[in-house]
Amino acid sequence: MNRPLKVALLGCGTVGSAVLRALQEQADDLGARVGRAVEVAGVAVRRPAHHPDVPADLLTTDAHGLVTRDDVDLVVEVIGGIEPARSLMLAAFEAGKSVVSANKALLAEDGVALHAAAAKAGVDLYYEAAVAGAIPILRPLRESLVGDQLSRIVGIVNGTTNYILSRMAETGAGFGEALAEATELGYAEADPTADVDGFDAAAKAAILASLAFHTPVSAADVHREGISTVTATDVARAAEIGCTVKLLAICERVANGSPTHPGDSVAVRVHPAMIPTTHPLASVGGAFNAVFVEAEAAGQLMFYGQGAGGEPTASAVLGDLVAVARNRLAGAAGQGPSGYADLAVRPMAETPTRYHVSLDVADKPGVLAAVAQEFAQHGVSISTVRQTGRGDAATLVIVTHSAPDAALSATIAALREMAAVRGVTSVLRVEGLQ
Amino acid sequence: MNRPLKVALLGCGTVGSAVLRALQEQADDLGARVGRAVEVAGVAVRRPAHHPDVPADLLTTDAHGLVTRDDVDLVVEVIGGIEPARSLMLAAFEAGKSVVSANKALLAEDGVALHAAAAKAGVDLYYEAAVAGAIPILRPLRESLVGDQLSRIVGIVNGTTNYILSRMAETGAGFGEALAEATELGYAEADPTADVDGFDAAAKAAILASLAFHTPVSAADVHREGISTVTATDVARAAEIGCTVKLLAICERVANGSPTHPGDSVAVRVHPAMIPTTHPLASVGGAFNAVFVEAEAAGQLMFYGQGAGGEPTASAVLGDLVAVARNRLAGAAGQGPSGYADLAVRPMAETPTRYHVSLDVADKPGVLAAVAQEFAQHGVSISTVRQTGRGDAATLVIVTHSAPDAALSATIAALREMAAVRGVTSVLRVEGLQ
Repeated sequence: MNRPLKVALLGCGTVGSAVLRALQEQADDLGARVGRAVEVAGVAVRRPAHHPDVPADLLTTDAHGLVTRDDVDLVVEVIGGIEPARSLMLAAFEAGKSVVSANKALLAEDGVALHAAAAKAGVDLYYEAAVAGAIPILRPLRESLVGDQLSRIVGIVNGTTNYILSRMAETGAGFGEALAEATELGYAEADPTADVDGFDAAAKAAILASLAFHTPVSAADVHREGISTVTATDVARAAEIGCTVKLLAICERVANGSPTHPGDSVAVRVHPAMIPTTHPLASVGGAFNAVFVEAEAAGQLMFYGQGAGGEPTASAVLGDLVAVARNRLAGAAGQGPSGYADLAVRPMAETPTRYHVSLDVADKPGVLAAVAQEFAQHGVSISTVRQTGRGDAATLVIVTHSAPDAALSATIAALREMAAVRGVTSVLRVEGLQ
Repeated sequence: MNRPLKVALLGCGTVGSAVLRALQEQADDLGARVGRAVEVAGVAVRRPAHHPDVPADLLTTDAHGLVTRDDVDLVVEVIGGIEPARSLMLAAFEAGKSVVSANKALLAEDGVALHAAAAKAGVDLYYEAAVAGAIPILRPLRESLVGDQLSRIVGIVNGTTNYILSRMAETGAGFGEALAEATELGYAEADPTADVDGFDAAAKAAILASLAFHTPVSAADVHREGISTVTATDVARAAEIGCTVKLLAICERVANGSPTHPGDSVAVRVHPAMIPTTHPLASVGGAFNAVFVEAEAAGQLMFYGQGAGGEPTASAVLGDLVAVARNRLAGAAGQGPSGYADLAVRPMAETPTRYHVSLDVADKPGVLAAVAQEFAQHGVSISTVRQTGRGDAATLVIVTHSAPDAALSATIAALREMAAVRGVTSVLRVEGLQ
């Protein structure tokens, strides 16, 4: 009988304890799937007293000692955050251990260096759980679609903001009210900044873009806008044009160059946007996640499921754990990501987007012409315009064609200065319209 | 410079020519992703004169000679059917070559023997393209979800039947009319038997069940019913209870035993069924495919995309080709499927299902009681019943709770014999109801 593979578990919060439970309860199945028994070598936590359910002989506060122990073969990192996770991961690689991680922030900040360290040590770094929880999306991008040319990924990858926006659409509530409800129900954390301001989604977008376009993209490369400025008016206006508001993580390959980037480049952004209710992503409600992928040959694909939670995230961690365990037994590391294409990251100002704009204007001759002229002067062409009069005032709802984002935001700034424009009541980007 | 990896392409129909085109047009990208140039060694076809677009020096009618050529590293089999595909695949394995296949019929009939031959030779057998075209589903099952316990897979895996059923729902047409339209538009083949009678879906169900439950399941194990008996009445009745009719491939792990199978077992079936319009699969229309997966920890997942066509299928083939090429360079075969669980396959008669039944009955006292008594005698409990009177006749619409399929079909047979039942106007299984 061969000796069991030993796993060091770093962190034992919601995800860690679900992983630990599965390793214990499903030991037989996991052993059969790996081809060798898999055992927990130890669990590193900050405060052992807070983990009465974990056998005391497994608990340790010495995470570094645990990952470098000779009998440890594999490391599962579910601490989150940058440090000490990064140092522990690097120590694991140096000691020849493969790592499974759920750490989106760390991978998005320092993925290139971490992958280089893993490759140098000839070990694996897998992190399916870092993006969209239980939904298998990184492996399909890394492997299934590696023979295709990806053009675009649009994802709903943050459950908290999706819950808030879903509630705003269902109840007509404003952002503050919906956030308060989400906090009360446990869908939003006490400090919701990481979710609400798009940091979480931006980290995931960076990871998705890196794999999809074979190009290193870090969180700092991602244009990021959160949902705290989305108003009940924005949501109502979206419904009027057959759309719904979602926080989207968009990764796209942009061809045809731009002033500063003449070749193909990659644009990665996170912002709220209107999408048509007929789009497959529009019906993804509540705390669910979905990732929509467009590839040259495969066409349109969508991956849907639970994006967070202990059990779903543990499922992704365990899938990776079985894979790195098998690789370990086969004496080979798996297929790492490839950064060979190394495309430029295009700044948001030069990224083509479309806008929806609602204006309160004076209802008198020449106003529509003046507004239209303002768009034209910035090189922005208008797709649809709807004018509704009400006494001496009128509402203008304009959806533009695609134009560089800077031209669109400059147009909005100019409209705000026009005498005939009494107010810009709603501005949101639009995605997925024909 | 290392010598390029050489690929033998067997078959050059719709999928084969899309693969060939991609290998030629995207040679640089594929080479970068593999880490070595990939070249076409030859293309085996029956009638070279029918392939004027293929360089003449690549074409050969000697498929066996091509797969066993010393300079060939990898084989792509897109001939389809059982022979000569099986012999060629076995010859490839014996000659130490990995194989990528899109052949659902062969894998569903003989998957165990083929995997054994590949494992013995230490080479790969990958076939993502065999199920649901471009949708990455086999790799997620084989790898991403390998640390989880799958309970159920429900798939729309045949585009032809989905198109026909979608049109029946949209237009109220009968099966014959919708099939004629599908044939005219090229969505159905001249001989539509494989699609319409569920053979294609059954082969895919067998492959999905094998991977999901770590148990060998062949096409012969799959209970199969096609859609040619689905009537416009069935479709209308479905709409009345908030459902839509789909041809479903269902693979489930059934616990709690049955008379002949006391332990956990696997039930695999293909048949038309009503599903609620709120179910994620209900909105999968036209020629699209989708696979809905339920796992213990991951919860509900769905994979959606194009299930057929040259380009989408070629995307899946190329993804596999890159993987087996990388494995080849790494000197290791990838993770094969595992049949360790080896669960029993439960016969359809003992598989729990739910039925929808519409009856024309005499509208007089005691009829409902008599009908209800017939269900009770067969041990079938009723979930909902709706009676609509119209003069001396009435319509009874009954949805049952779950019961062994044999008890349900025996109940229907008995109802047909009842004097008070003037006709059984619609019988269809129901899935996904709460």
